[in-house]
Amino acid sequence: MTTRTPRIQMLLTGSELMSGDTVDSNSAMVGQRLGALGVTLERKITLDDDLAALTTAIREISAFADILIVNGGLGPTVDDLTAAALAGAAGVELEENPQALSHIEHWCARRQFALDAANRKQAWLPMGSDILPNATGSAVGIAMTLGHCRVMCTPGVPGELRDMLDPVMEEIRRRHPDMIPRHILRLQTFGLGESTAQQRVADALPHWPQQVALGFRAGAPQMEIKLTADSGTDPGLQTQCRSQLEALFGDHIIGEGNATLAARVLELLGARGQRITTAESCTGGLIASMLTRVPGSSVAFEAGFVTYSNRMKSDILAVPETLLETHGAVSEPVVRAMALGALARSTADWAIAVSGIAGPDGGSAEKPVGTVWIAWGSADDLHSCGLCWPVERSLFQTMVAAAGLDLIRRQLLGLPPLPWLAQQRRIDRAGA
Amino acid sequence: MTTRTPRIQMLLTGSELMSGDTVDSNSAMVGQRLGALGVTLERKITLDDDLAALTTAIREISAFADILIVNGGLGPTVDDLTAAALAGAAGVELEENPQALSHIEHWCARRQFALDAANRKQAWLPMGSDILPNATGSAVGIAMTLGHCRVMCTPGVPGELRDMLDPVMEEIRRRHPDMIPRHILRLQTFGLGESTAQQRVADALPHWPQQVALGFRAGAPQMEIKLTADSGTDPGLQTQCRSQLEALFGDHIIGEGNATLAARVLELLGARGQRITTAESCTGGLIASMLTRVPGSSVAFEAGFVTYSNRMKSDILAVPETLLETHGAVSEPVVRAMALGALARSTADWAIAVSGIAGPDGGSAEKPVGTVWIAWGSADDLHSCGLCWPVERSLFQTMVAAAGLDLIRRQLLGLPPLPWLAQQRRIDRAGA
Repeated sequence: MTTRTPRIQMLLTGSELMSGDTVDSNSAMVGQRLGALGVTLERKITLDDDLAALTTAIREISAFADILIVNGGLGPTVDDLTAAALAGAAGVELEENPQALSHIEHWCARRQFALDAANRKQAWLPMGSDILPNATGSAVGIAMTLGHCRVMCTPGVPGELRDMLDPVMEEIRRRHPDMIPRHILRLQTFGLGESTAQQRVADALPHWPQQVALGFRAGAPQMEIKLTADSGTDPGLQTQCRSQLEALFGDHIIGEGNATLAARVLELLGARGQRITTAESCTGGLIASMLTRVPGSSVAFEAGFVTYSNRMKSDILAVPETLLETHGAVSEPVVRAMALGALARSTADWAIAVSGIAGPDGGSAEKPVGTVWIAWGSADDLHSCGLCWPVERSLFQTMVAAAGLDLIRRQLLGLPPLPWLAQQRRIDRAGA
Repeated sequence: MTTRTPRIQMLLTGSELMSGDTVDSNSAMVGQRLGALGVTLERKITLDDDLAALTTAIREISAFADILIVNGGLGPTVDDLTAAALAGAAGVELEENPQALSHIEHWCARRQFALDAANRKQAWLPMGSDILPNATGSAVGIAMTLGHCRVMCTPGVPGELRDMLDPVMEEIRRRHPDMIPRHILRLQTFGLGESTAQQRVADALPHWPQQVALGFRAGAPQMEIKLTADSGTDPGLQTQCRSQLEALFGDHIIGEGNATLAARVLELLGARGQRITTAESCTGGLIASMLTRVPGSSVAFEAGFVTYSNRMKSDILAVPETLLETHGAVSEPVVRAMALGALARSTADWAIAVSGIAGPDGGSAEKPVGTVWIAWGSADDLHSCGLCWPVERSLFQTMVAAAGLDLIRRQLLGLPPLPWLAQQRRIDRAGA
């Protein structure tokens, strides 16, 4: 046992990880579990299924790390080399482990499979190693102490790894009882860039306490702010940090944890007993889809309309043909008429309507690809703005859908739109 | 220039990769591109934002590798240390690079942002380094030769990396002209599991040639079959392999490359000059969104309807209220009436309609969570089936949307539905 924070490394193996056919989510799962324990992974190394390279890596890492978590290479095929590499690094032979054999026999029997040579290979473990039980798969995990390093070999199948992480984390905690678990708070925001957010904190909160680590993670469409503090940190300080961020980022903050714009809009509507509808052209159903991905969305969402063509805008949403002829489909009068038409047809209280040019084709000098008009609000209090977001089609659709949801979120909260939405509108109008 | 296969390694940096807040898909993107060039990544190392560790890693790797691709750490924040680590490893200072500064100034101007200190930091590059243009983001890439190793630093934002990989791969190809490119053929399929597909090949094609590597990658909703052969491999053999797979998997195959069900359906409709409409309840706009994500979808898609509540099903799609009362919204008569209503309102030629219980709430003993009815076809030739897919809400929506698209794809091709869709229907009916 040691009182300092353990040095923990991961070694991942698999040709599918090198070819890019598989995206590694396993090490993220391990990283999150370790984070809650109070320790950060020091390094991850990913290698092909190459016995010499794996053996060398295990030997080198175990010379200085406290814990090495190996992932992958426990399966029945000839490419699965983890047991052999571990034996090589430890300088011992492989032997048929009775406990592992019994596990595989049971596993095969439950599935009415005959135990074949390939499966039986999974029972050959380094002499002197321990077993990590696998509740789901045929391969047991392997644990072994090399010098002062505990090496723990886990399966590459994500579900099997997930099940095995409980005993793995428990053993790490037991070996390093002085680790201090962490409190992690995540705030979801919209309309802020990573660098803007960081600059704002630097300017407004120059004395940010070192004990509360602050991280920003940009995504599309949301950005996450993450606060991490050791569980020993004064709770008052943590609360204060949170309040300072709330004051600084205010209405950019959508909510905690995995909060989304769509879920927040539905929550605000649910509290009022009101409903929303959508009239989508360039986003093609994405706003409706974001709303209905949220469990329980039926409380506040009854109907949405995807009106891609001019004809459907007039046939379904009763957009006057003269407006379409005079201003074109991507225009303020049309998008407002779409919102009013959707409100009338659905009898909802609130609407989001969008009409734009997602590209790559369909742009013009006057209305380039990326031009979009958004209308939002109620029949009595309808707003609209025009933007130009000249980005790739799918990102454009995502950002426009999120902007629509944020505009209605702000209206429901009695807040003004994001300044850069209002600003862009004036620019667009000046250019028209 | 060298005639042997180059040794290529990756160094990934970012605390979000160590904490597990971000799953690394970037190295998979790089691995795939390198695979097409004819080379496999030798090793990936992932480190925290730690200047000393990054500097040491760049120095150590560049001592023996031919190419080092660094990913991440180019952003504007204090945690972005790649330029400093590269300068440290090279033993040079950072300097403000006029070309990089000009790029950032243009980037800010286009967005009407003021150039702040954080952005300006991104123009400080190691003396003597070259620039890799970034078409989308504020950070330019950095290339520099250390000893005989070419180090290329790329942005962590996936879209920006994607854009930058063209010049990166072109430079690697130019430096190592003797690499033998690989022919990679990807076939996209629907309705097949990974192990079923593998077993079918083992049973039907026992003499599969070693020169053509065969891989299966399960995704939701599609599964990819990948054939890889050195470009020197007999083209006749490659064609033969492809034909054998096409005979074996037949109408499960949607298309080549990045083919999607939605794109294939639109292509088939476009060839006929026909249009499709959607009437969605439990998928909530996802089918429309999948269709309109495809560039040029307006040719064959004019309108879609999201009718979540019973009232909207009757108000908007003219589903008779008696059907809703007698059979409930999740029923064969209602989903057929939804399809007919959408066809009538949109004047489209084809329709997909779905009504189901996505959960987690809303299930009953008779209609548990995961129950769904799908109708597809034309007014004259309308089909329907019932399924039960008791999986998590978001996966349920994805699989149901894909099933709807596959059913219409098969109808457009004159093929029968997947057997297990027809089979499930009978089960559901027997239970009703």
